[in-house]
Amino acid sequence: MLKTNSGYGVVLRVELPKRPGMLGKVLSVIGRAGGSMGAIDIVGFKGGCVIRDIEASVADLDTAKLIVAAVRRIKDITVLNVADRTLLIHQGGKIGLKSRVPLKTREDLAIVYTPGVARVAMAIYEQPERVYELTMKKNSVALITDGTAVLGLGEIGPAAALPVMEGKALLFKEFAGIDAFPLCVKTRKMERLIKVVKCIAPGFGAISLETISSPHCFEVERRLKQMLDIPVFHDNQHGTAAVVLAGLINALKVVGKRMEDIRIVVCGLGAAGIATIKLLYHTGARQIIGCDRAGILFRGRRKNMNPFKKEIAGLTNPEGIRGGIGHALKGADVFIGVSEAKAVDVADIRKMARDAIVFVLANPVPEIMPEEIEPYVRIIATGRPDYENQMSDILCFPGLFRGVFDCRAREINQEMMVAAAGAIASCVVPEELMEQNIVPSVFNRRVPETVAHAVAEAAIRTGVGTREHQYAMFD
Amino acid sequence: MLKTNSGYGVVLRVELPKRPGMLGKVLSVIGRAGGSMGAIDIVGFKGGCVIRDIEASVADLDTAKLIVAAVRRIKDITVLNVADRTLLIHQGGKIGLKSRVPLKTREDLAIVYTPGVARVAMAIYEQPERVYELTMKKNSVALITDGTAVLGLGEIGPAAALPVMEGKALLFKEFAGIDAFPLCVKTRKMERLIKVVKCIAPGFGAISLETISSPHCFEVERRLKQMLDIPVFHDNQHGTAAVVLAGLINALKVVGKRMEDIRIVVCGLGAAGIATIKLLYHTGARQIIGCDRAGILFRGRRKNMNPFKKEIAGLTNPEGIRGGIGHALKGADVFIGVSEAKAVDVADIRKMARDAIVFVLANPVPEIMPEEIEPYVRIIATGRPDYENQMSDILCFPGLFRGVFDCRAREINQEMMVAAAGAIASCVVPEELMEQNIVPSVFNRRVPETVAHAVAEAAIRTGVGTREHQYAMFD
Repeated sequence: MLKTNSGYGVVLRVELPKRPGMLGKVLSVIGRAGGSMGAIDIVGFKGGCVIRDIEASVADLDTAKLIVAAVRRIKDITVLNVADRTLLIHQGGKIGLKSRVPLKTREDLAIVYTPGVARVAMAIYEQPERVYELTMKKNSVALITDGTAVLGLGEIGPAAALPVMEGKALLFKEFAGIDAFPLCVKTRKMERLIKVVKCIAPGFGAISLETISSPHCFEVERRLKQMLDIPVFHDNQHGTAAVVLAGLINALKVVGKRMEDIRIVVCGLGAAGIATIKLLYHTGARQIIGCDRAGILFRGRRKNMNPFKKEIAGLTNPEGIRGGIGHALKGADVFIGVSEAKAVDVADIRKMARDAIVFVLANPVPEIMPEEIEPYVRIIATGRPDYENQMSDILCFPGLFRGVFDCRAREINQEMMVAAAGAIASCVVPEELMEQNIVPSVFNRRVPETVAHAVAEAAIRTGVGTREHQYAMFD
Repeated sequence: MLKTNSGYGVVLRVELPKRPGMLGKVLSVIGRAGGSMGAIDIVGFKGGCVIRDIEASVADLDTAKLIVAAVRRIKDITVLNVADRTLLIHQGGKIGLKSRVPLKTREDLAIVYTPGVARVAMAIYEQPERVYELTMKKNSVALITDGTAVLGLGEIGPAAALPVMEGKALLFKEFAGIDAFPLCVKTRKMERLIKVVKCIAPGFGAISLETISSPHCFEVERRLKQMLDIPVFHDNQHGTAAVVLAGLINALKVVGKRMEDIRIVVCGLGAAGIATIKLLYHTGARQIIGCDRAGILFRGRRKNMNPFKKEIAGLTNPEGIRGGIGHALKGADVFIGVSEAKAVDVADIRKMARDAIVFVLANPVPEIMPEEIEPYVRIIATGRPDYENQMSDILCFPGLFRGVFDCRAREINQEMMVAAAGAIASCVVPEELMEQNIVPSVFNRRVPETVAHAVAEAAIRTGVGTREHQYAMFD
């Protein structure tokens, strides 16, 4: 399996004597310790020495430490500073504001601020719909998190969630031209979170709920959808579900099976698991088995339940089987892991049917490492960029919101999610479709525009979006 | 008095026969109707006709309507569309997000999003202070409004306030490189507003309260200052106060009077009036008289009171005079109007002392029009860009926040406001100082940097800011 960059990197500032061979010595030490070389800069001179910044990519933090220790041991060389490249790149944050209009003259100022802007404000006051035309609303998303379920890190709080939100805002901008504003909400109360989002909604065209823990997230989403006149979307649920569906559509083509016939085991009944089961059911899958830490979900189960799992119990496990994940996997065609590291073992996976499809999407460490199960399954996908078949939410949300904004959809419904999944799947053209390539690259620029188009069409078809918005400019 | 652009403009799309003289005819009609010509573009051809966009600046909306009517009357010419230039410029909003880091390769992605960003999030979780280093926090302001007191427009609601907030965000960016994020909060409850701001604070380096009505604004500011570990600033109060003080410092130089000796009448006891009185008192003014709709404020007044006015009553009107604004103005050296149009009349102003200084800052229409009082006073200032001596909050807030961020001030105190005012005043150099030029131009680029420097020095001197912030990059 291909293993690519992990995002780790180290920048060493070293003082080297001005003698031939010194830099080469450092580089070879770094290479032997497991680093792969990046940029090398001269940052200054001091006495008979050169001061250089040397950047190296590494597989993990331990390798970085090994490299630093090895360079420190080289004679005549002083390590002045060691920086973590990832942290360096995050210095000062990853996003900023930009101006979209000129502001160089007194006339510009009179237009964009007082007195001109008063007329714009009054136009919106008199015709509230014009906020879509005359402000940033129609292209802006509020990225909401309470910091309770950030990546695989758990409850790290709103401030620590900010770099993740900024990263997401970058992706919105880069892939869909959308302005996404991170709002890290400090509260542990669900009602408070709902009220905060409700209160700040007027300035945004959509709400994207991020990394809010389950089962709170379902209630937060449901209530906000009811309250607000703009779309509310919980990426950890529906984004994951859409990408899983996209991958499954293509994987089934590769193995020659049909959605209606296959047996699917979904491991993890949190935000992603529940949304995935609903979406797969919506598209015709009828043999789905849900599992969580308490084992197989069945009608009437008492242990480890909530109202959302109860609803899922009604849609799944038609035979009413009971037991652990291993039992569920016997003869299963598809395993979808949206749970945590080590949730299954090799023996479980080996019980699956011929041409097994395994999506192990736990982040950052999958339910089982691909290396361990490669011999026993036909298709493997993870959530990671350093393996093939990366099932990233990046495939969905930029194009989805672009489509939502393009037709000014009032909400995001299941038909739009199915359309998004189909569009993602369609970006892997038949001649490229194979076991190692069931989802397009996150850098495939056709993905967001294909998704946007499909989503807008689905919104218009289902009556939640419209084809055009025009305003009289001057009344 | 100089009267410049008002921000009004009209764009006519007209269909003209392809004959010599047709465009000239349109332009002369526009000129006669009171328009001054802007850009002229050809946008297309149709049959024997040319389609052109013709832009004209006008003094007001009525003139725009006259122009349109006059052009419509020209023979053989069809007006296809009429657009308001200000609204055109606001199309789609005035601000957007920008990326500050590259995102072109899989490696970039692994750094700015998963898995790299997880390490950044954990660094902040482990050392909360690092949120200043590793996110946008240290350079970002939340611009909060509840839409209750927008410009001179009153309570128009949060959505209609958005274009004004965007305009302010533009100014923050253009003049101080600060990222300001508009948050239009839909609530009429003060407690709710406070909670919303408290909850969203973790992602921002400062809170700027905008256009929140008095007396709510005082309590909102006081409570938030208590709760939060980042600076909270209400521009309508303190920004106005600082600019008034700056103008007064210079005006007193021109007329040769001293702060300690002068008699000042402040008309309007809302956000701006109360903050202005406090700041003037702080800098040594002792003969201040406050007035509102109920007349002169005195100790023990019962009518039209609130706790904030009661506090002000203790600082002002040492002689305990009573009566209307006219009575207050007898022999006054300075009139500061932060109230509403028509709050004073010419007869009142004529009662002032020799070399009277009059700041009529009500927006958009001053307490009295400068034209009416010009013969009777020495110095006049307004809040408008189309008169001389524009006392705009733009002179203060960009530099103030730049200074606050540069020294990471925990709060904004009166010493910092005094420093800001002094810095603004100092940007009018002695050889430029005169009746018509007591405050620098809002486009004077020295203003924000001078203010920033003075504010940071004051913050450090008073112990709320520090000179340096350094972090170990790699632990």
